[in-house]
Amino acid sequence: MCELLGMSANVPTDICFSFTGFLHRGGGTGPHRDGWGIAFYEEGGYRDFRDPHPSVRSPIARLICDYPIKSTIVISHIRQANVGQVRLANTHPFVREMWGRPWCYAHNGQLTGWQTLPLGFYHPVGDTDSEHAFCWLLGELRRRFPELPADDEQRRGLWRLLHRLCERLRGLGVFNLLLADGDYLYAFCSTRLAHITRRAPFGRANLSDAELTVNFAEHTTPDDVVSVLATEPLTDNEDWVRMVPGELLVWKDGEIVARHGPGPA
Amino acid sequence: MCELLGMSANVPTDICFSFTGFLHRGGGTGPHRDGWGIAFYEEGGYRDFRDPHPSVRSPIARLICDYPIKSTIVISHIRQANVGQVRLANTHPFVREMWGRPWCYAHNGQLTGWQTLPLGFYHPVGDTDSEHAFCWLLGELRRRFPELPADDEQRRGLWRLLHRLCERLRGLGVFNLLLADGDYLYAFCSTRLAHITRRAPFGRANLSDAELTVNFAEHTTPDDVVSVLATEPLTDNEDWVRMVPGELLVWKDGEIVARHGPGPA
Repeated sequence: MCELLGMSANVPTDICFSFTGFLHRGGGTGPHRDGWGIAFYEEGGYRDFRDPHPSVRSPIARLICDYPIKSTIVISHIRQANVGQVRLANTHPFVREMWGRPWCYAHNGQLTGWQTLPLGFYHPVGDTDSEHAFCWLLGELRRRFPELPADDEQRRGLWRLLHRLCERLRGLGVFNLLLADGDYLYAFCSTRLAHITRRAPFGRANLSDAELTVNFAEHTTPDDVVSVLATEPLTDNEDWVRMVPGELLVWKDGEIVARHGPGPA
Repeated sequence: MCELLGMSANVPTDICFSFTGFLHRGGGTGPHRDGWGIAFYEEGGYRDFRDPHPSVRSPIARLICDYPIKSTIVISHIRQANVGQVRLANTHPFVREMWGRPWCYAHNGQLTGWQTLPLGFYHPVGDTDSEHAFCWLLGELRRRFPELPADDEQRRGLWRLLHRLCERLRGLGVFNLLLADGDYLYAFCSTRLAHITRRAPFGRANLSDAELTVNFAEHTTPDDVVSVLATEPLTDNEDWVRMVPGELLVWKDGEIVARHGPGPA
């Protein structure tokens, strides 16, 4: 199984602390040796860094730890290959442009019968179940919403459709998802996904996977709201919330703005 | 004006030497301080590194110089902004998926009247003339070729159409182009673009913009063919070929496989 890491924040924030713990799972404390990637949204722009080598030994991953890129939405993934070879084209996150926005996607899990999901606008470059499912999902959203949703009602309709599509993919196996469009971060839980929101008063956090402690009070202002999502909690002294299978959370500026599925309303 | 750098090779080759000279133009020997990017095709996969800061001071650019990524096609760009703010969304190269392939694009020049070029499948994320022209160009190719060209005749038809579209853009101003799909590298000259092909017997080359000499004989095998394209020649002891305005060259495995326009047939 792969591992997911996400962040939603109300101010441009660097994810160096969480990413340091996360990448130790990429061939260090974890078995996820088959590549890694991380995507950043910055001022309406998007960039990702991907490497088909273990993150714990990757010079690009070290750069990301040492060079704080400040972002409001981050999606990262470390891979343990099941479907598809270990190569760059199969390395998450995947990205496609829709409505003039870069949509970024990372998947943890494995699907069956995914080959028959029909494709339209978007086609996979590699040969994973994950990328095929992404192309199908985004194509279905675009088919029903040819234009960017113009108001809250259309946006809620889009999110309901996204939840239904995620539930359909959950019916094909394990489908834990992080998806983003630059404004919103979407998290869908099939089996494992946890989150934590940090806000004032900020305290200390200890990584579970590496010997590192950070005092967020030294790096934040009182109005900052920063939420982190991960397959498994990354720190051992904070209360992470585990998502419920079938639950879709929509995040903006570090806060949950919508919830679909079996979780508490 | 911006500067372009491209490579086509018949074996995975690192571009560290050429890139070292090229990035000195990004705020060092040149005025191109408004961001830079580089894209690599590797084993059917694609990745790019982009930074909206001057290349000569960018830690990501230093990484690219020090960490040899071996690739058969490379496109790089350093920017001097004219249309669109200095920000990540306006930083070349741009990429879109068509027919399950990542198409990568970088443009040098400035266009007028580009806002009226009609868009279809692809929409810009940023607000430059360059990205708008890319979305139009790729959309036109896809409209006429909904599927990947299946044989040489269809491919030749695609290239003829590409040349006509480039000529139309040249009619709107200055349009020097590097474009790639993972198999082919396309170079269109509007005002300035030069190329050199290196093959056995390999010799020494001296960078024009930095004190660096390389002896390619030490880094190659006798069958290697490596072609480099740049806005201006990067070395001062080799014979670069300057392209002719209106000429489109199609490169594969380091060789020119097709030529459209006013250049010699």
